[in-house]
Amino acid sequence: MNDPLVTLTTDFGDDSPYVAAMKGVLLGVNPRARLIDLSHQIPPQNLRHAAFFLAAALPYFPPATLHVIVVDPGVGTERAVLHVEVAGQCLLVPDNGCWTWLPGSELAAVRRVSNPRFFRPEVSHTFHGRDIFAPVAGHLSAGVSPSEIGEPASEWVHLDRPTPAIGPHSIIGEVIFVDRFGNLITNISAAELPVPPTRVQLGRRTLPEGWRWVRTYGEADAGSLVVLVSSVGTIEIAEVQGNAAQRLRGTTGTAVEVVWDD
Amino acid sequence: MNDPLVTLTTDFGDDSPYVAAMKGVLLGVNPRARLIDLSHQIPPQNLRHAAFFLAAALPYFPPATLHVIVVDPGVGTERAVLHVEVAGQCLLVPDNGCWTWLPGSELAAVRRVSNPRFFRPEVSHTFHGRDIFAPVAGHLSAGVSPSEIGEPASEWVHLDRPTPAIGPHSIIGEVIFVDRFGNLITNISAAELPVPPTRVQLGRRTLPEGWRWVRTYGEADAGSLVVLVSSVGTIEIAEVQGNAAQRLRGTTGTAVEVVWDD
Amino acid sequence: MNDPLVTLTTDFGDDSPYVAAMKGVLLGVNPRARLIDLSHQIPPQNLRHAAFFLAAALPYFPPATLHVIVVDPGVGTERAVLHVEVAGQCLLVPDNGCWTWLPGSELAAVRRVSNPRFFRPEVSHTFHGRDIFAPVAGHLSAGVSPSEIGEPASEWVHLDRPTPAIGPHSIIGEVIFVDRFGNLITNISAAELPVPPTRVQLGRRTLPEGWRWVRTYGEADAGSLVVLVSSVGTIEIAEVQGNAAQRLRGTTGTAVEVVWDD
Repeated sequence: MNDPLVTLTTDFGDDSPYVAAMKGVLLGVNPRARLIDLSHQIPPQNLRHAAFFLAAALPYFPPATLHVIVVDPGVGTERAVLHVEVAGQCLLVPDNGCWTWLPGSELAAVRRVSNPRFFRPEVSHTFHGRDIFAPVAGHLSAGVSPSEIGEPASEWVHLDRPTPAIGPHSIIGEVIFVDRFGNLITNISAAELPVPPTRVQLGRRTLPEGWRWVRTYGEADAGSLVVLVSSVGTIEIAEVQGNAAQRLRGTTGTAVEVVWDD
Repeated sequence: MNDPLVTLTTDFGDDSPYVAAMKGVLLGVNPRARLIDLSHQIPPQNLRHAAFFLAAALPYFPPATLHVIVVDPGVGTERAVLHVEVAGQCLLVPDNGCWTWLPGSELAAVRRVSNPRFFRPEVSHTFHGRDIFAPVAGHLSAGVSPSEIGEPASEWVHLDRPTPAIGPHSIIGEVIFVDRFGNLITNISAAELPVPPTRVQLGRRTLPEGWRWVRTYGEADAGSLVVLVSSVGTIEIAEVQGNAAQRLRGTTGTAVEVVWDD
Repeated sequence: MNDPLVTLTTDFGDDSPYVAAMKGVLLGVNPRARLIDLSHQIPPQNLRHAAFFLAAALPYFPPATLHVIVVDPGVGTERAVLHVEVAGQCLLVPDNGCWTWLPGSELAAVRRVSNPRFFRPEVSHTFHGRDIFAPVAGHLSAGVSPSEIGEPASEWVHLDRPTPAIGPHSIIGEVIFVDRFGNLITNISAAELPVPPTRVQLGRRTLPEGWRWVRTYGEADAGSLVVLVSSVGTIEIAEVQGNAAQRLRGTTGTAVEVVWDD
């Protein structure tokens, strides 16, 4: 049998000892765990960024991979820690809804992590990543059953997900993610457009004359604005070999309207 | 038996080929090594940052984990490379004191790495990470005994550690670490305070009216200043869902005074 | 037999889900793969940075390590994906030349990846990292032969490499890499200099009086400008415990001339 995979996603950044301490605790419990860093650069306490990230990445992993997620503005308060089985994956995650954009989340099997036998002996009030998430993940990866970790839960926090407004000739949505290339990924499903758009509005700007509807960046010249289907199946605004977010001053939350002719 | 764990901590950053070259050399010597990145974002040549980082992270690892640390302003000079057994861990580290904040460092078993048989055939003057640390770590992880690597040492560099001044109603210390959330972690042990503080001074500022002593961030409203016990057991100044370092212009080295009433 | 090593080098950055999705797909195909992050901080679409990076890192890995490289301005266009055997290593890489600075690249065994049986069932136009590179890497690491992946190729893109101009008493080259310490690494091979230089020109500036030719940084005082042999064997300009790139406003592409006396 393969050694168990455990992925780590946090907003801790890469210069602090927090991620390193979590890895130490987890490996201290189960030295056989194979750790995979997904990201420690989730913007601090940004649940929507985390939600987009998790939905776009976790479903690709082998079934039953254990994913430890610590983006946790509520650390130390009464918020629960959840064990979630969803989209074929297993998650340890604060009960703040950041996992609820995963496909099939309404069918998830959820437990509240509550058995302190699997925590570090002293649990701090500010670092549950080290004191709860890491040791529980170590035990789970070593074969402890989720049923020993806590009781099933029937309620949990849902994270609001902006829904586009679909009209007869247009859809109004918003930017939900900006990547490192400055590509503006929207929440407007390309499948909802009957034909390619003829006008695209980003915030108060109409995309200037000359933008093109393309399949991929390389179909237009460097510096061109293009509109295309993103890798998550939604409408995306990009500048070829440039940075559309900077050029158009778009950012997460900026309204986007796509309009088409009959 | 498990494949051996080897962690890596450097100040090389993540865009240069230096870390990648180290990984290549190490795995070239021992392809079974399981590499764990701790951080490559230690601020350049910042020994105090490295010292805080190592003390807060390494002790959690399984016993005898090998930790390779390359924060090395003295590369190429006469400074030694050390093999250190401390806090149950094994370290390869430049002799610059950055490991001496680990608990029990006064009891460490230290060797000077000197046997060139375990180095790369040509050792550059500017990149001992690739030419000495990585191959030696490869050999150690493959089972070579530290006694083959070099002779015991009885002297090594100690890194100054700022010590708080403890008075009858106050302690004066300083900020020793600022994390990604802008939390200001001090070197003032919470255990030294008989009661919660009534006044906190950061540099020339007194924390403005309205700050609160809390157990965790979530106990106060967003934007509030709070003082609490950090995850390393010291006094910490934070802004709930904000960034205290930016708001109060505190940084590593800024003086902190906590005052309490009888 | 050891589980197979697979390294990852991209320009995706660390906050987007792109790298995480690639890891998921790759491990979904071959859960035994041992993933090694080399860098996800290659500057966006910067082929020369990638080329320098790969040449300085890949040759150190154990023979036949599989390296997945996704710096891919041409994603979705007709550009091929290549499987390359070079310098004892195996690469999956877009056909944009970024691998051609590796030693021995003129002797490489190259194939064009073309068998969609090893791709994800739906291949997007903008994310071949997830849809082609990751699953093909999973299959290769699981033992699929390169000959099943695609046909041998005899032509591929070469990336221009700036060549220094060598005169009787001087060499004119350029900065090809700036590291995190602000060290300016040039493309001027130290082996071409018969004696240490007496004058060094960076762009329009002559290095000011007082710079020194040294073997390593620690031979001069903090703040001194030094010229030395870099860890890749070329001339390097550095400021001891400072940042030469900022001080001298040098960057990748800045011309460098080194002059020596008879």
